[in-house]
Amino acid sequence: MTFSELLQKRRAIRDFEEKEVPLKIVEEILQESTLAPSASNNQPCRFAVVSCRKTIKALSDESKANLLGDHAEKKIRLNPDYVTMLQNENFNVFYNAPCVIYIVGAKSVGSLDVDCALAASYIMFGAAARDLGTCWVALGANIRDPRIRAELGIPDNYRIVAPIILGYPKAIPPASERHAPEILRVISEAR
Amino acid sequence: MTFSELLQKRRAIRDFEEKEVPLKIVEEILQESTLAPSASNNQPCRFAVVSCRKTIKALSDESKANLLGDHAEKKIRLNPDYVTMLQNENFNVFYNAPCVIYIVGAKSVGSLDVDCALAASYIMFGAAARDLGTCWVALGANIRDPRIRAELGIPDNYRIVAPIILGYPKAIPPASERHAPEILRVISEAR
Repeated sequence: MTFSELLQKRRAIRDFEEKEVPLKIVEEILQESTLAPSASNNQPCRFAVVSCRKTIKALSDESKANLLGDHAEKKIRLNPDYVTMLQNENFNVFYNAPCVIYIVGAKSVGSLDVDCALAASYIMFGAAARDLGTCWVALGANIRDPRIRAELGIPDNYRIVAPIILGYPKAIPPASERHAPEILRVISEAR
Repeated sequence: MTFSELLQKRRAIRDFEEKEVPLKIVEEILQESTLAPSASNNQPCRFAVVSCRKTIKALSDESKANLLGDHAEKKIRLNPDYVTMLQNENFNVFYNAPCVIYIVGAKSVGSLDVDCALAASYIMFGAAARDLGTCWVALGANIRDPRIRAELGIPDNYRIVAPIILGYPKAIPPASERHAPEILRVISEAR
């Protein structure tokens, strides 16, 4: 698959076939993601892989409850559409994905967000190259219950940066609308 | 070029041919980068493109002076090797790259770091797909002089996330050493 094809295939996928993703393929994708650049080649990304639907539902419920709690306490401001969606018991933030990859790392790493985002892009492209679909689901990141965090193997001093859902897409939707690149300035030799 | 080939070609490049990068190719790469995902499809990334060597040198000098100043005032702690390097007048943080792309965006965007990092990965892969080399040079991000920021077209309420150098590589070095992916936990249906 060429890069042009990959650019078309890497879409936000929120509707998946019932088919499970073999762990071997997840491991291949994570292996490739280690090739992502990181600040000073520090490689701070760690992973938790969940392909149990009951656990995925519990993670969705935990994240939804925390988001709604934060919103009620005015710690965050969610737009009303999100609130309605999160209040719906049947809404799973991970949609029907058969697998969720949590990308996490030590809070002490200053570049953690960008390092994990770069790894996430490798994972999303690596999945697309294997005809898998992904979506970075930020709504699924609010996991605080110590019991659940322990179940995921995430230490107290770690932070969840990117929950990525993974599965075989029912369809590849067209790209949502994009604006042209906004180039603020070009400074060229010839000025 | 397949994704496997891209994974091999996307290396941190710090040694470039004298050859300039045509602006048309930079624009193509930035156009592709708009396909990167962003939180709520907000598309907050903006760009400044510098392909004037005199300006690139001035940007390097500005960033070095600010980093050394912050270090002297104990606002940041640089490791001694970096200090020595930054104190060397002949050291250009952008190496000999003929082009620097600044990825910037509004400070008010909560997801700016990860949105710009995802766009950066598209730019780095898009460059590799065209036999160009890149490197995210965090040392080049410390541009504060209002005159220089105005020259780059960067408004006061914007933040520089990623300076990416771009050019034709003299060689594609092997990947620096990577550890195996650290998978903290796998939770599968079969438990």
